Amino acid sequence: MFWLIFGVFFAACLGAGVTGGLFPPGDWYRQLKKPSWTPPDWVFPVTWMVLYVCMALAAARVAVRPDNGLAMAFWSMQIAFNALWTPVFFGLKKIRLGLVVVAVLWASVLCCLLALWQVDWIAGALFVPYLIWVTIATALNAAVWRLNPAEARTH
Amino acid sequence: MFWLIFGVFFAACLGAGVTGGLFPPGDWYRQLKKPSWTPPDWVFPVTWMVLYVCMALAAARVAVRPDNGLAMAFWSMQIAFNALWTPVFFGLKKIRLGLVVVAVLWASVLCCLLALWQVDWIAGALFVPYLIWVTIATALNAAVWRLNPAEARTH
Repeated sequence: MFWLIFGVFFAACLGAGVTGGLFPPGDWYRQLKKPSWTPPDWVFPVTWMVLYVCMALAAARVAVRPDNGLAMAFWSMQIAFNALWTPVFFGLKKIRLGLVVVAVLWASVLCCLLALWQVDWIAGALFVPYLIWVTIATALNAAVWRLNPAEARTH
Repeated sequence: MFWLIFGVFFAACLGAGVTGGLFPPGDWYRQLKKPSWTPPDWVFPVTWMVLYVCMALAAARVAVRPDNGLAMAFWSMQIAFNALWTPVFFGLKKIRLGLVVVAVLWASVLCCLLALWQVDWIAGALFVPYLIWVTIATALNAAVWRLNPAEARTH
């Protein structure tokens, strides 16, 4: 049962993850001013695949335990906002709305981490790299807004 | 705790639901040939809001019970694919890929309904209108493909 549940949570991650292929960075993103610490494009899909495995493992560990309700709710919330960010930022090119979405994602990932940890500390620990990565993504989205004020206004 | 969990699941629904406002039907959808039984545009947001309440209630009822792991996993999977469909269909105008996404959504909603029902039949019953609606959406997506073969090929 554990691996079936893991597989379904991983499928949820892939549902969010395919947005990265469907709404790729492209010319618009390349011509934006970006901070010096921006990771190269290839880092993103590699990092996400590792994070998806960690996220699905964390979810499956807690899914088979009692008193997992709040953790499961925040896991659902974070995957919905995870799926939303790429179409908003790269699809619609909405830098400011992207920042709102990624900030909600960040808050839901933090709440999910804490709720997972209450049930199983290993599950909580598996969410730490994800929280760090979304923190970087939020900082990058904010920096892109600051460095491209005209572009942010037009969308 | 029930209502907090309900609120978080409802927030997940809204994360998927805002795609309807961000990627509206627009001129492209209006000029497509559609079957005679296509619901008018205003029906969609109204129906979705009712369904989101039912979906979050079903999730919260099962989240506070034991042995909910598979139901929670499928709930997460369906909300990720729910969030994905609108950007693919209305954003990218990809009719065929939209059909793939909505077919995966349909299967995950069916599996979620069955898994919810195992834990609490009322939660399963709350998913019946959702399954009916996604069945209609799948049929509509398929009919749009059939009626607009040239349009489906160009995207």
